[in-house]
Amino acid sequence: MIIDCHGHYTTAPPQLTEFRERQTASLGDMARRRSLSMAPISDDEIRESLEGAQLRLQRERGIDLTLFSPRAVAMGHHLGDAEASLAWTRICNDLVHRVCTLYPSNFAPVCQLPQSPGVAPANCIGELRRCVEELGFVGCNLNPDPSGGWWKDPPLTDRWWYPLYEVLAELDVPAMIHVSGSCNPNFHATGAHYINGDTTAFMQLLTSDLFRDFPTLKFVIPHGGGAVPYHWGRYRGLAQDMKRPPVEQLMKNVFFDTCVYHLPGVELLTKVVPMDSILFASEMVGAVRGIDPCTGHHYDDTRRYVDALAHLGEAERRMIYEGNARRVYGRLDRWPTVE
Amino acid sequence: MIIDCHGHYTTAPPQLTEFRERQTASLGDMARRRSLSMAPISDDEIRESLEGAQLRLQRERGIDLTLFSPRAVAMGHHLGDAEASLAWTRICNDLVHRVCTLYPSNFAPVCQLPQSPGVAPANCIGELRRCVEELGFVGCNLNPDPSGGWWKDPPLTDRWWYPLYEVLAELDVPAMIHVSGSCNPNFHATGAHYINGDTTAFMQLLTSDLFRDFPTLKFVIPHGGGAVPYHWGRYRGLAQDMKRPPVEQLMKNVFFDTCVYHLPGVELLTKVVPMDSILFASEMVGAVRGIDPCTGHHYDDTRRYVDALAHLGEAERRMIYEGNARRVYGRLDRWPTVE
Repeated sequence: MIIDCHGHYTTAPPQLTEFRERQTASLGDMARRRSLSMAPISDDEIRESLEGAQLRLQRERGIDLTLFSPRAVAMGHHLGDAEASLAWTRICNDLVHRVCTLYPSNFAPVCQLPQSPGVAPANCIGELRRCVEELGFVGCNLNPDPSGGWWKDPPLTDRWWYPLYEVLAELDVPAMIHVSGSCNPNFHATGAHYINGDTTAFMQLLTSDLFRDFPTLKFVIPHGGGAVPYHWGRYRGLAQDMKRPPVEQLMKNVFFDTCVYHLPGVELLTKVVPMDSILFASEMVGAVRGIDPCTGHHYDDTRRYVDALAHLGEAERRMIYEGNARRVYGRLDRWPTVE
Repeated sequence: MIIDCHGHYTTAPPQLTEFRERQTASLGDMARRRSLSMAPISDDEIRESLEGAQLRLQRERGIDLTLFSPRAVAMGHHLGDAEASLAWTRICNDLVHRVCTLYPSNFAPVCQLPQSPGVAPANCIGELRRCVEELGFVGCNLNPDPSGGWWKDPPLTDRWWYPLYEVLAELDVPAMIHVSGSCNPNFHATGAHYINGDTTAFMQLLTSDLFRDFPTLKFVIPHGGGAVPYHWGRYRGLAQDMKRPPVEQLMKNVFFDTCVYHLPGVELLTKVVPMDSILFASEMVGAVRGIDPCTGHHYDDTRRYVDALAHLGEAERRMIYEGNARRVYGRLDRWPTVE
């Protein structure tokens, strides 16, 4: 079985974006805001949005199950206040849940959280519990920078985040650390802010004792761990100079996905990072949609890179494709169709 | 000849830091600030600061010449105003110049710029000209985030920076894009802010036509180009999706150094990035000072990694060690002892 731990609903029907536009246009008008609702989306519209995209690519690439969450760049936690964030988040999560209920053997749901800059993460607990306990979600996305490129909230290792971590640990739900869009003109979203967010989060974790306080908490750092594997020697050396535990110890709680869009990158990742800390993912349909003229295949067809790795044995490939994901996403086997 | 294009004076005598501490403690008292001067540093003190450190390591590692600039993390452009930045910058540059004059065959000078958040980069032209035209500096360090982790100034591709670029082009001086310290608690300086700065700058350049306006301008992105080579497929794909020129074209004006502290990283860098865009560097004595227990050698002894690359021919190794640096740093052959 091949599990892709990182997919977003980037192809949702236009009613979703249209609702968000109306919502953000009426942020100052509380009465109007609260009266807004999304125009209905039919099951057929959902099917159409997926059949020619994620479902076709799953079939073509031989991917069995995608852990599916709302579109990351559209989470936009920096837009409006916590109430607007919650309204938007519920709509996005409910839509993802419908997708996963329509195609339970293709998708398992991962939720967005109703974060808002300057608002305590404890405020997300209600929606997290609703998604996990009532709807069967198996994971969540956690934005380390709800301010959208201004990095105004405390680091992930600050006690500010602890109430949320307590519930994640209680529910046995991992968080993928994933920023959203950037409203800072310095940071291109998918080309800089995403990768920086990954690198930044890793270094926050490296310099803290968070996992002493939460020994079972699990974080997935997407996009191949940002810059970290490429600079593995730097991080090993920094940990050593700072008298921190070896980075390998951190990798008991931290996992990198394989969203690295060329073979040499995936090769490096799997050569330096412990094998039980790597989860297969492609983020399709996502940031990079083209075909690489050097290979004739999509850049984000990451299965080809993992399949091509000569230094992996069959057991290791199975860990990356399935075993590690099942271990990290402890609730996956409660999702109806996953045994 | 082996040229290390990236070294900072991290071992300067304590008078330098002591001056800076007095300066930052008196930022609000203009009269006192202007009366401050650094306690004298003797030539012997400079020699002592280098003999057991950079000079010993140069000998041990067989590095002939280091392009030497003030300590990057201490540039601290976010501290105080433009006048304080200029006073501090002049002292740092003058000290680096003394180092290079004492050891002209070991070091060639690269200057810090008196940047200040919110102040037009044109304000740096006077100090740049002084360093290059009067003192023989061969390059400069350019901070893409003078606000120190808050990223408040315009992107490097904004016209805000153009007057400075005009002078860089006129003087044929490359800029190494190098952030300084971070006062944003989210960003560890050497573990996150440095690498993020590199990645961010690359993506700014990828999405702009800066080098159409300045065809001869050259930027060195340090720390192996941040996350870029590891995500080379992502950047190639993003450029393609955005109908930008191929990233290989950008690499006519952009260069990555080899400050990547393990063999697999340097291997990746030299396999994906065009060979004439890679400059040897170690950044010693810098961010990572320990010995890798897996190899028994310093993490930052990057020459070992380049020497170990089986896929490089002798001609390619010469480009990385010397030829590319001479091409990028056009003024290097005017430095007294470099032929």
